[in-house]
Amino acid sequence: MELFEFMKEITVQAGSNIRQKLNEPLLIETKSNANDLVTNMDKETERFLYETIINTYPEHKIIGEEGSGKDINDLSGTVWIIDPIDGTLNFVHQGENFAISVGVFIDGKKYAGVIYDVMRDKLYSACAGHGAYLNDSPIEPLTNTALKQSIVSINPNWLTKPYTAPIYGPIVVDARSARSYGSAALDFAYVATGKVDAYITLRLHPWDFAGGLIIAEEVGAVVTNQLDESLNMLHANSILVANKALHHEIYSNYMKPYQTELLTIHQGRFHSR
Amino acid sequence: MELFEFMKEITVQAGSNIRQKLNEPLLIETKSNANDLVTNMDKETERFLYETIINTYPEHKIIGEEGSGKDINDLSGTVWIIDPIDGTLNFVHQGENFAISVGVFIDGKKYAGVIYDVMRDKLYSACAGHGAYLNDSPIEPLTNTALKQSIVSINPNWLTKPYTAPIYGPIVVDARSARSYGSAALDFAYVATGKVDAYITLRLHPWDFAGGLIIAEEVGAVVTNQLDESLNMLHANSILVANKALHHEIYSNYMKPYQTELLTIHQGRFHSR
Repeated sequence: MELFEFMKEITVQAGSNIRQKLNEPLLIETKSNANDLVTNMDKETERFLYETIINTYPEHKIIGEEGSGKDINDLSGTVWIIDPIDGTLNFVHQGENFAISVGVFIDGKKYAGVIYDVMRDKLYSACAGHGAYLNDSPIEPLTNTALKQSIVSINPNWLTKPYTAPIYGPIVVDARSARSYGSAALDFAYVATGKVDAYITLRLHPWDFAGGLIIAEEVGAVVTNQLDESLNMLHANSILVANKALHHEIYSNYMKPYQTELLTIHQGRFHSR
Repeated sequence: MELFEFMKEITVQAGSNIRQKLNEPLLIETKSNANDLVTNMDKETERFLYETIINTYPEHKIIGEEGSGKDINDLSGTVWIIDPIDGTLNFVHQGENFAISVGVFIDGKKYAGVIYDVMRDKLYSACAGHGAYLNDSPIEPLTNTALKQSIVSINPNWLTKPYTAPIYGPIVVDARSARSYGSAALDFAYVATGKVDAYITLRLHPWDFAGGLIIAEEVGAVVTNQLDESLNMLHANSILVANKALHHEIYSNYMKPYQTELLTIHQGRFHSR
């Protein structure tokens, strides 16, 4: 458990660094498109984590959203998958509702996940097989829900796309209600703690879900892509995470009938925004 | 300002009562439909506020979501408009992300608004003409934003309706991003504090927005229905609240072209969910 404790410590330390610098001016740049932001704080936080890890564990491999480990093509050894600020748009606009996400895999197997809601000082964590925690309190195993009594987290943007609206629209219509929070890592944490019952999205990178996957599965959530397959830890994925009964209901009734369309979406044959 | 101080005091006291009882079992009933929930806590909180107000100000009138003042047909005198728990679904599912909303009007004129984010102990308040506050700190006047740099709060559900999807879809597509939080009162507070730049919804009752209207306008937000008219404080309204430039952009470019459709929606000639 020494590595797990180290993960939690450096993540909280990185969050503390962010809080201390929150009032300093930000350098904001765009990445893949005008709404895909990165700030100096994302980069500094990744650098802090990278250097702290390598100082202690020089043999570990690190994949980070801001460029670390771009050349890593397999999960052999101990691999960290890091998002220094998940929800950068929230970070820039709101100064809250963002998280640091860290997942560690050992020879391709889940080891542990940590998600730190920086401004609320809430640390979600799980070492695979040992239960999940919110700060020092165990997170209860999930209870099953039916869609009609469930809250589903989904970005409204997916309901405006001709290729996803017919698939996701009926899910939103049949759910009790829908929410959108703008941080994938926190959405995983919210599913794990029952704040929402399902989270649905496309185009999520491993750093967005590596920590969340481990935490959510630890409390019984089912995490797959929208073809009901295991997530690929080295590429972008579509995502369906929910408690077991709800995952089955959403996949079987709403996604499976669109498998051809979803396969097309997976293969990237659709317009980027 | 005595009345304003009283408003804040009893709202915080009501919130404190809710926090103390948060772990007690809830009685949950449905109202207009299976997803329109009310709990004993909504009713108890309204009763506490009603009795506390009438004890001190027996001549005041009170309109509450849970039934107080159903027979009030005008805004003469001092009128309280109260939502004891705005975001009841969040209250039930999440135990957070709900608010107490209170607005007071004197002879139809805005007097003061209070929104209390109960679980985060954040009190948004404004006495008309005297600035808005988050707890004891003044809230800065809003700065203008363009839609393409803005975050818009809108429930994904509105993008699934054939009568609203063509109107709201393009707003979401052209915005920087979209969010959905599930409490109208908090959405007004988020616009007022710049966490989101606009909030768009249909079918909002006076208790959902009475407090938020006063707070948001106090920092320069423009609050209208989607026909660009002032809100009716005695009936349900459609809502567009945003900073001044963004309100103009959204109304002129996205809503005005659909005025016939929006008028039809206002007149209730659409299917309820």
